[in-house]
Amino acid sequence: MKRLVGCGVVAAALMIVAGAHSSAAQSPQTSGGALDPAVIEDLVAANRILVAQGVLDAYGHVSIRDPRNPNRYLLSRSRAPVLVTADDIMEYDLDSNPIDPKGRTSVLERFIHGEIYKAHPEVKAVIHSHSPAVIPFGVTQVPMRPVYHQATFLYGGVPVWDIRNADCPDAAAMLVRNGCLGKSLAAALGDQPVLLMRGHGNVVAAADVQTAVKYAVFTEVNARLQTIAIGLGGPINYISAEEAAARAKAPSDFARAWELWKKEALGR
Amino acid sequence: MKRLVGCGVVAAALMIVAGAHSSAAQSPQTSGGALDPAVIEDLVAANRILVAQGVLDAYGHVSIRDPRNPNRYLLSRSRAPVLVTADDIMEYDLDSNPIDPKGRTSVLERFIHGEIYKAHPEVKAVIHSHSPAVIPFGVTQVPMRPVYHQATFLYGGVPVWDIRNADCPDAAAMLVRNGCLGKSLAAALGDQPVLLMRGHGNVVAAADVQTAVKYAVFTEVNARLQTIAIGLGGPINYISAEEAAARAKAPSDFARAWELWKKEALGR
Amino acid sequence: MKRLVGCGVVAAALMIVAGAHSSAAQSPQTSGGALDPAVIEDLVAANRILVAQGVLDAYGHVSIRDPRNPNRYLLSRSRAPVLVTADDIMEYDLDSNPIDPKGRTSVLERFIHGEIYKAHPEVKAVIHSHSPAVIPFGVTQVPMRPVYHQATFLYGGVPVWDIRNADCPDAAAMLVRNGCLGKSLAAALGDQPVLLMRGHGNVVAAADVQTAVKYAVFTEVNARLQTIAIGLGGPINYISAEEAAARAKAPSDFARAWELWKKEALGR
Amino acid sequence: MKRLVGCGVVAAALMIVAGAHSSAAQSPQTSGGALDPAVIEDLVAANRILVAQGVLDAYGHVSIRDPRNPNRYLLSRSRAPVLVTADDIMEYDLDSNPIDPKGRTSVLERFIHGEIYKAHPEVKAVIHSHSPAVIPFGVTQVPMRPVYHQATFLYGGVPVWDIRNADCPDAAAMLVRNGCLGKSLAAALGDQPVLLMRGHGNVVAAADVQTAVKYAVFTEVNARLQTIAIGLGGPINYISAEEAAARAKAPSDFARAWELWKKEALGR
Repeated sequence: MKRLVGCGVVAAALMIVAGAHSSAAQSPQTSGGALDPAVIEDLVAANRILVAQGVLDAYGHVSIRDPRNPNRYLLSRSRAPVLVTADDIMEYDLDSNPIDPKGRTSVLERFIHGEIYKAHPEVKAVIHSHSPAVIPFGVTQVPMRPVYHQATFLYGGVPVWDIRNADCPDAAAMLVRNGCLGKSLAAALGDQPVLLMRGHGNVVAAADVQTAVKYAVFTEVNARLQTIAIGLGGPINYISAEEAAARAKAPSDFARAWELWKKEALGR
Repeated sequence: MKRLVGCGVVAAALMIVAGAHSSAAQSPQTSGGALDPAVIEDLVAANRILVAQGVLDAYGHVSIRDPRNPNRYLLSRSRAPVLVTADDIMEYDLDSNPIDPKGRTSVLERFIHGEIYKAHPEVKAVIHSHSPAVIPFGVTQVPMRPVYHQATFLYGGVPVWDIRNADCPDAAAMLVRNGCLGKSLAAALGDQPVLLMRGHGNVVAAADVQTAVKYAVFTEVNARLQTIAIGLGGPINYISAEEAAARAKAPSDFARAWELWKKEALGR
Repeated sequence: MKRLVGCGVVAAALMIVAGAHSSAAQSPQTSGGALDPAVIEDLVAANRILVAQGVLDAYGHVSIRDPRNPNRYLLSRSRAPVLVTADDIMEYDLDSNPIDPKGRTSVLERFIHGEIYKAHPEVKAVIHSHSPAVIPFGVTQVPMRPVYHQATFLYGGVPVWDIRNADCPDAAAMLVRNGCLGKSLAAALGDQPVLLMRGHGNVVAAADVQTAVKYAVFTEVNARLQTIAIGLGGPINYISAEEAAARAKAPSDFARAWELWKKEALGR
Repeated sequence: MKRLVGCGVVAAALMIVAGAHSSAAQSPQTSGGALDPAVIEDLVAANRILVAQGVLDAYGHVSIRDPRNPNRYLLSRSRAPVLVTADDIMEYDLDSNPIDPKGRTSVLERFIHGEIYKAHPEVKAVIHSHSPAVIPFGVTQVPMRPVYHQATFLYGGVPVWDIRNADCPDAAAMLVRNGCLGKSLAAALGDQPVLLMRGHGNVVAAADVQTAVKYAVFTEVNARLQTIAIGLGGPINYISAEEAAARAKAPSDFARAWELWKKEALGR
């Protein structure tokens, strides 16, 4: 339930714009009405912030559950995250079918997003990355554990999912290219906010896009710090259960990071 | 007493501007008169320099003791350090109450600053950071020791303060959010210039803001170098007591670093 | 045969422009007709991309087999890769003689390129670099192995070529400055896409320039990740044979990386 | 004698400009005539290149022996290297007295330069830096050895000089602040191109400023690579004596690095 802890700012923004279309009933294969532009702006910003913070490179993707329809999610077409603009955002159903592709190419691994939203109703934002400092923890037997206060959300454990163990088509090709693989990953995630994909990258799930970005960035930083601490040698004084619980309930000052990161990412 | 060794340049600048208000007696809850703009400029520059040098990220903060009133200190509102401007600087009493908040949000951990100023009259500048190379030394049993001549100020030892051992409210949430926690930290600092906060970051205290910046930067660099030296293996030839003492009394050429860093930080 | 797996985009671009000269028979020492400018643009972009990605520095070079004549290759004059423009591209025969030097200085180690094209008809692009994270694997006994899905092309093994073992003139001076040394290197490469040059750097060979860039970048990243994983300690869960084979046949989304990298490299 | 191997370009530029003053006899305390501006330009460029390459930070300095008078050397006033311009260059005798200071502050450790020029007539350029990857080799017992072909000049061994062992005033303060300390360092250098100053940094000496820059940069890179190779574990296949000797006599392609670095450093 860690991922339910968030800053709440986006939650407020995720209100349906009370326009002409927004009160209309949505058929499954019809796009929802107009979205608050601030929602899309935060989604675009999230893509770029994660590049600036060294979490994403030319790959990786960020989605949000559609605030107008919990059975839909929003995800950029297949494009390097730093290039993503509002026009690249596409809408998908939870089986990861695009609603109105307009000729745009979908991300191969969009099933990560759809299946997590299907299995975990409380999740409202998902990130998949090749966050570099994190990958080694997925291929060794060293568990990722929080070494500092910004990463206490890792306390519950970081599951490592090995795609080879999923009884699904195309598992050997390593990409989550179908619903079967996505379901297996979503089940392995359980109620943790972060899951490692062995030999590939990781997935972050959270209650809003700002919190997902926060988790993704501090997972990367924690991986760097834990690697250095292990290199120094000797026992490591990890974050305790009591601290993780207390931090989850304490006031957050994440707004200052988000203000900076968004300003830098959007160039204004 | 290491932190009393400084470049003295700021000390000269910390003179009260002889304006209309400056000679008036200050009541505890009244802001002081006009400050020399150069004092504020150096404080703003310190925030930005520490970002450029990799000591601060979106978090961390820098304060100075108010040159007009030793029972006050000056600290930016809660804002990413690289965005701080003169207008963000707020005034606090030593119990860390804002004098004239004007609706601005205070830094949650301002009690670090207030309690250090209260306990250590010789301290005129305080920095709190999540300086990344330093954090691992706070969670291992490897003592931070100086490996090169720019970090001889670490010779006296770098205490590690574990907030869990403070008998105070909210200790488990890991942030120094009240005076009780700040007092505990300030006591642990003793007369050293640097203290590690286990699983969190560090604190630097010095006789002026330039010296505090110098200590914060070279503590980060020393941590990187010590980590590499440990990785190479075998005994390490650390700085000796005699060298630390001699360096503290020797002429400094820090002015050349400050000139560069300030120029780069302020973009001119 | 790993290097035959490519994105195919360049293959299409490598068509001879149907201009006045292009249909003329080419004598061995006559330059071919006009090239599709897109071919040269990709070659120039490859040079700059590899600098931006940390694979090349002031040294290293990228060539393509001439699409108009398989017995020729195209390579910049001796120049730092980030400065290379279309005017710097020279044409060579497979003995690495320049066709029309126009006073330009040739790269000392061009024999790497010529001899690989001679020995391996399926190779259409070659990169030589001092890719920094890779060099240590050439001087230790630790084999480079793929730790993540972007580097499955390394699965077949990464040969280490030690120039001292080549029975050729000037071997001790460490540079591949003649055909004899180039032939020895090309033979050691076999049908692998990457070869390490002990105490020097590496060579990448692929079926097109985009794939060569992809291999060079992910070889560097894999080296960083493998180094960190080894530092964490314990057994490493490397990519399996089955995964390497499946990835080689799976659809690729490299176009998104190429779009980004080229845009950034060419500044538009 | 390794440092006599250079690109010779600067050697040609170090000709006295045949102006009105240049043929006049120079008294010891009179500045020489006009210098070829290209000489000064290369010296300024060297300062900035070394910052861009991560060898210098706010500290460190570069000098050349005065081409007009072998008993003089040219060195910037005390200033961060990236800020150095032609106007900052001062002239010194070999006892490190400034000839015409014009109120400018001299570098505290200029005696490094003066005493090396005095003891080693073949040296024409000297660099002192806190090159970060190199410092750990000065405080451990791990000898710095060349792991790749760009650093073969290190083959003869890299002496480690500990200032505490010099029987001179102010040795404990760690800076080379007088001739006695400079003489001790210059004697320890012997005929090697690089010397480590334990707990401080290193010194590079060469036959011209371009070669000195080359040595300083590749010493830093070699230190990074050797550190990584040691971290991988097992025996390291270092550069051999035969290779070092052959490389010293082989043609160099350093002109391509210098062209790039100077262009980037001078912004044109």
